[in-house]
Amino acid sequence: MTKMGVKPEKQSPKDAEAVNHKLLAQAGFIKQEMAGVFTYLPLGLKVLTKIENIVRKHMDKVGTEILMPTLTPKELWEKTGRLETVDILMKTIPANEVSRLKNDSEYIVSPTHEEIMTPLSAKYNLSYKDFPVSFYQIQTKFRNEPRAKNGLLRCREFRMKDLYSFHTSSEDFGNFYERMKEIYMNVFAELGLGNDTVIALASGGDFTKDYTHEFQTRLESGEDEIFLNKETGVAYNKEVAPEDVQDENKYERFNASEVGNIFPLGTKFSTAFEYDFVDADGSRKPVIMGSYGIGTSRLMGVLVEKFHDDKGIIWPENLAPFKVHLIDLRQPEKASEIYDSLVSSGVEVLLDDRETTPGEKFADADLIGCPFRVVVSEKSLAAGGVEVKRRNEKESRIVAIEELQSALG
Amino acid sequence: MTKMGVKPEKQSPKDAEAVNHKLLAQAGFIKQEMAGVFTYLPLGLKVLTKIENIVRKHMDKVGTEILMPTLTPKELWEKTGRLETVDILMKTIPANEVSRLKNDSEYIVSPTHEEIMTPLSAKYNLSYKDFPVSFYQIQTKFRNEPRAKNGLLRCREFRMKDLYSFHTSSEDFGNFYERMKEIYMNVFAELGLGNDTVIALASGGDFTKDYTHEFQTRLESGEDEIFLNKETGVAYNKEVAPEDVQDENKYERFNASEVGNIFPLGTKFSTAFEYDFVDADGSRKPVIMGSYGIGTSRLMGVLVEKFHDDKGIIWPENLAPFKVHLIDLRQPEKASEIYDSLVSSGVEVLLDDRETTPGEKFADADLIGCPFRVVVSEKSLAAGGVEVKRRNEKESRIVAIEELQSALG
Repeated sequence: MTKMGVKPEKQSPKDAEAVNHKLLAQAGFIKQEMAGVFTYLPLGLKVLTKIENIVRKHMDKVGTEILMPTLTPKELWEKTGRLETVDILMKTIPANEVSRLKNDSEYIVSPTHEEIMTPLSAKYNLSYKDFPVSFYQIQTKFRNEPRAKNGLLRCREFRMKDLYSFHTSSEDFGNFYERMKEIYMNVFAELGLGNDTVIALASGGDFTKDYTHEFQTRLESGEDEIFLNKETGVAYNKEVAPEDVQDENKYERFNASEVGNIFPLGTKFSTAFEYDFVDADGSRKPVIMGSYGIGTSRLMGVLVEKFHDDKGIIWPENLAPFKVHLIDLRQPEKASEIYDSLVSSGVEVLLDDRETTPGEKFADADLIGCPFRVVVSEKSLAAGGVEVKRRNEKESRIVAIEELQSALG
Repeated sequence: MTKMGVKPEKQSPKDAEAVNHKLLAQAGFIKQEMAGVFTYLPLGLKVLTKIENIVRKHMDKVGTEILMPTLTPKELWEKTGRLETVDILMKTIPANEVSRLKNDSEYIVSPTHEEIMTPLSAKYNLSYKDFPVSFYQIQTKFRNEPRAKNGLLRCREFRMKDLYSFHTSSEDFGNFYERMKEIYMNVFAELGLGNDTVIALASGGDFTKDYTHEFQTRLESGEDEIFLNKETGVAYNKEVAPEDVQDENKYERFNASEVGNIFPLGTKFSTAFEYDFVDADGSRKPVIMGSYGIGTSRLMGVLVEKFHDDKGIIWPENLAPFKVHLIDLRQPEKASEIYDSLVSSGVEVLLDDRETTPGEKFADADLIGCPFRVVVSEKSLAAGGVEVKRRNEKESRIVAIEELQSALG
């Protein structure tokens, strides 16, 4: 822990209001650089990477990973009309006079990639037999958000997985869209959010007159209001809820936080970029598109809002930055022996070797929230080994050092 | 290959001049979105990820990985005076009127991260006993480059590993700096560039009156001119070369491309941000810093400049997008059987199942440059198996299907 260069703090930052911001900042997962813009510190980057690798694994089943740029040409945004209408769109200009004299071009800082993706897919001029195709990326996005708030839940700069699919018929699009609903639910299940996440109807916004679908996770602190029809099981975002929605016999109301969304884009972008394909019968038709987003850094915030107690975070085991939080209470040799042995067997261990009080070490272990706390102390050694406690249990037990590995199973 | 959604092209793009741009674009590794801004397509992202994972493995030996943001506050750049002086610095402004009305703040689009890193490290208020500490990230950087050119070699948006180290004494800094030289040379050795890479003295620019060090790879098309003193073995970038440098008896001159650099930052940034530490004797001293960069997307360009012939790219085996390029010549069942068997044993295989001529398939295999080409055809099966050829060899041979795996060893 002394080698990490960062450490938990005594208190959460004064300007942090949301639980995820408070706990993640105090425990040393993130550092706010300005409103809505964060650095992911060693612990935070570990969790973010685990979330993104789970998302990646599921996306690889339906699409191919690429990486599109942040800076994109203004002309593409003019073509779709979004240069003037997207209210969170930013562009770059030179920051000073020397820079301006060298190159005063302006570029869009992309919040989403339909404008790049559509001409990219069109370029490769696929045969109708090669469809459907889909591409995804996991990458940083930018929004000129007026009120960045709630820690990782509403940022100006954030991490996102966006997938885009291309189809030659509405039927094919429909099948793919339904498959993506399943795949998204598999992602949220693996993240431990499956039982609390519903697919809610939402407005199509700029994209479509149809409904789009949001994946909403029940959360008291969530920004969205969801109405679930108790009879049909259909969930509605407030913005598209039926008139009789206040009828409590018919609808369950709850707060929720959006963890993903899927959009039928229709032919809006393929028409703007003249992306046609030649069908089997020789006729030209515009390609039908869909887009599918998951905010990966936002998910880290939602997970903390969901999994914590008054002492700190309680990470699901597959997302924890380390499996074991190893506390050395003045037994450096034994602790370092146990550390080496666990690490060499592939167990992820955070060693707290700081010169501080046991109380502070215990409090920080609860704050950081690794699944297992292992304490090496004179007392534990006298009792026959080390003290093992799960983060979500109250009682610890003594485990012989030879049996530690299997006790963590 | 038909599932990738992109495919090799008949010709390289008209505006491509550099070999790396021509070959990478034609083979389907990258797509230029505008001057100096590229999308990494499926093949390109695979290679970029392999390069970055090699860099990551070596950096993990000396530092901790974090992820700093792209958008950063202007005030930090004012503090160091770089807001006005950095000639490639860009900032964001709202792209349109609706966006401006919601939030007209301006943010710096970071080309480097000393301004974020220094206050970040200072915040955690480490004891002198905890030093040295170092952090690194692998991330996208932005430069308002007036003449973006040479494909991936000079971009407006590019991928970079940057590491920052913090020290309590010049001696400690010096030791770390020398260690980084070794570690960098290990990185370039693992990338296949070890024998052709020298450490050259270069100017300190804004940072320091001392020399800095560049890692320069011999390359006919390289932008830099290096003079190597034959007697002392010391290499100089032209900008700092001694007066007698044109003496051919004394100096070897060659073109090279910069693949990495390391900078002694001294106390420039720690002084600007008042980053002091309390030493063992109780006195306050400014922290001594160094920064260490490797352009990972640039390296992809250098590798192609280095490893190609007139037919295409010749990837080193540890960087190739796939180990095997499997060509199916109208033997779909056998080909797919071989594909499945290789993939399930963990071999990375690209299957060319397109409906096109054998000639085009062979040419594309050479263009893409995977280490092994395996052809399944009626002829090969009649001869007892599949045809195997290494990318860097002329002759192919027939290998029985049961022995294919060991033939790829």
